[in-house]
Amino acid sequence: MRAYTKQDFPVGDIRRFLEPGPIVMISSAHRGARTIMTCGWHMVMEMEPSRVGCYVWEENRSRALIRRSRECVINIPTADMLDTVIDVGNHHGDEFDKFEHFGLTPTPGAKVKAPLIAECFASFECKVIDTSLVNRYSLFVFEVVRAHVATSPRYPATVHYRGNGVFMLSGRNVNRRARFKPENLN
Amino acid sequence: MRAYTKQDFPVGDIRRFLEPGPIVMISSAHRGARTIMTCGWHMVMEMEPSRVGCYVWEENRSRALIRRSRECVINIPTADMLDTVIDVGNHHGDEFDKFEHFGLTPTPGAKVKAPLIAECFASFECKVIDTSLVNRYSLFVFEVVRAHVATSPRYPATVHYRGNGVFMLSGRNVNRRARFKPENLN
Repeated sequence: MRAYTKQDFPVGDIRRFLEPGPIVMISSAHRGARTIMTCGWHMVMEMEPSRVGCYVWEENRSRALIRRSRECVINIPTADMLDTVIDVGNHHGDEFDKFEHFGLTPTPGAKVKAPLIAECFASFECKVIDTSLVNRYSLFVFEVVRAHVATSPRYPATVHYRGNGVFMLSGRNVNRRARFKPENLN
Repeated sequence: MRAYTKQDFPVGDIRRFLEPGPIVMISSAHRGARTIMTCGWHMVMEMEPSRVGCYVWEENRSRALIRRSRECVINIPTADMLDTVIDVGNHHGDEFDKFEHFGLTPTPGAKVKAPLIAECFASFECKVIDTSLVNRYSLFVFEVVRAHVATSPRYPATVHYRGNGVFMLSGRNVNRRARFKPENLN
């Protein structure tokens, strides 16, 4: 695993990386504690402001850290990190510090105290804006307040989960812009 | 486009097709009106019961049909249908009947009145179970009450949207079951 050089990216354009549905790693911290969880249950909910919905199970240690700190970072790992992604998801946050144990590098955010994961090609700093469906459905609504994306490659391979240990890897990109009505392009 | 032969599929296992994040086509009907919308903003929210969260914009004609009928069908198109997917998304439901205009075949569901799309390889019949965040965030929560999936191929190529006219096509599958803790496999 290598750390990516990232640059600021418009928060309103993060669908480019999130809407195709990759597994993400969510990092959070609160009062000296920190952890990482894997997550495939998330969705883009708005572009302006940039909103993301995310399922965080009550069994996850992340749930308390995110709820109390009211922030987190959504990081997107690449296919070469697949074993680490699986291992992060297979261990509970109470067992050990996941950054240290899995050799992941925490880097400071600009607008949240939760650490970014340097080895992920994209990191989106999030503030919690709605917890009204957390108790009933484990659903958090986040606003993305700052985005960092690797300068290259433009579209690294991502991993998408099918359940039961099977992953789909992202394939090639197809530009069909010419078929869209101009007003529907964003 | 061809119609797929489908069979009943366990509703608790639909993440296999939905969690990787494909563009879906949502069909709905109410009092003689019917329509189809494309959607990339959706997420799995639970397996038992089988729940899905979905963003349905207020500009979509589907929103009123889904809200009034309290049901819909989430259909997953394959990569060979990409132009139809784009065209369905580029036209408003008020313009014409999208089934007729785009040569899509409506087939009856088992538990909802909304029609399935025969040319999609998977169709999930849904009931609306929560509308409390519709006005604020356009978020519907559905329960999948019946699922139909093509008998073959097992994993057809799907399309995943990046915005601005660019799609990612699904790539190969990787089985990493052996690396998981058995209790985390589902």
